[in-house]
Amino acid sequence: MPYRYDYPHPAVAVDIVVFTIDDADLKVLLIRRRGPPFAGGWALPGGFVGIDESLKRAAWRELREETGVSAGILEQLHTFGHPQRDPRERVISVAYLAPVPADRLRPEPASDAREARLFSVSDLPLLAFDHAKILRLARERLRQKLEKSVLPLELMGASFTLTELQRACELILGVTLDKRNFHKKVHIMDVIEATGEEWREGQHRPAKLYRVKSRRDLTDR
Amino acid sequence: MPYRYDYPHPAVAVDIVVFTIDDADLKVLLIRRRGPPFAGGWALPGGFVGIDESLKRAAWRELREETGVSAGILEQLHTFGHPQRDPRERVISVAYLAPVPADRLRPEPASDAREARLFSVSDLPLLAFDHAKILRLARERLRQKLEKSVLPLELMGASFTLTELQRACELILGVTLDKRNFHKKVHIMDVIEATGEEWREGQHRPAKLYRVKSRRDLTDR
Repeated sequence: MPYRYDYPHPAVAVDIVVFTIDDADLKVLLIRRRGPPFAGGWALPGGFVGIDESLKRAAWRELREETGVSAGILEQLHTFGHPQRDPRERVISVAYLAPVPADRLRPEPASDAREARLFSVSDLPLLAFDHAKILRLARERLRQKLEKSVLPLELMGASFTLTELQRACELILGVTLDKRNFHKKVHIMDVIEATGEEWREGQHRPAKLYRVKSRRDLTDR
Repeated sequence: MPYRYDYPHPAVAVDIVVFTIDDADLKVLLIRRRGPPFAGGWALPGGFVGIDESLKRAAWRELREETGVSAGILEQLHTFGHPQRDPRERVISVAYLAPVPADRLRPEPASDAREARLFSVSDLPLLAFDHAKILRLARERLRQKLEKSVLPLELMGASFTLTELQRACELILGVTLDKRNFHKKVHIMDVIEATGEEWREGQHRPAKLYRVKSRRDLTDR
């Protein structure tokens, strides 16, 4: 049953940039496309918005359908609308940013994707469509949030050491941070608390484990 | 000639929030709608995106067509996609923020609008669609930029006094600023310079006029 309109309509899609910290590295979740265009190529998970579905709901659903991942936080990033960004027809894409802790991320490819897996942001495959551009903007947004002194707590697991948190910030900023200054700043921000447990690896001194104090104020509007 | 698609497509529109400082007040440019829905009601200028037109180009064109105003800067704000936000059909709207100095703003209603005029943000009429929500987010974005120490120089005229600039910041933040601290901060930012001319009003001491040092670094990416 074809749908008719008096003037041409674009299609509207969502694309989701899932970041996580895994193996002390900043990673992004990509899928291998099953069908054309770019069949067999890597891309951000995403798909078309249902006609009665909100944009955020579409982002949640598509991510779930393509990778098995349920996003906790979905922050709208930017809308990409270059008239030639998709070879099929005019497709306008609303991009979302979804920071997910690695311990809540078990990608499993579903219906529309051949494969779903994490890639280090420093070792990415060629991406379909304008997804490299979307990913660049997403990394910049992560950086901007941290520069506004919003710690990337959504990326951390249920408990983490200060060294792990510092490493996450360093990966996002692309610079090495001074340990003492970092600890001082984090202490002043007063958003994490010791769990009372410690983590020990090899010969190293045991490190205190922390958790997020309250997730209430961490999400953007 | 109807356009056919195998699955339903939304319409995509742009809406533009033009802010200016006029008469020592923060104002927004609104139009009176000529046709339904909300005929005769006030709304943000905007309209549908052409099928071969970029989103930003559509925003520039619609603003020009509806108000006669040519935006210098158009910054994408957010995309609004509630399935019931328009009574006609599913319309997803990409909202833009356009700060325009009052001396470059001579609204004149054109084809699609009955009337175009500036309203103080503290004395707004009822707005059509979800435009009140769009406007709230736009004001918040202005505030956030200023809190990140980006002065609202795009809102200022070709030359202005420090008192006028301080007033603009106060209107955006909704608080009164300390004059000495403000002057000190602005001096440190090093983004404006004295024109060499002065401005005198009534019995007041003459005030130095300033201009923006370089517009290069002021625009967002």
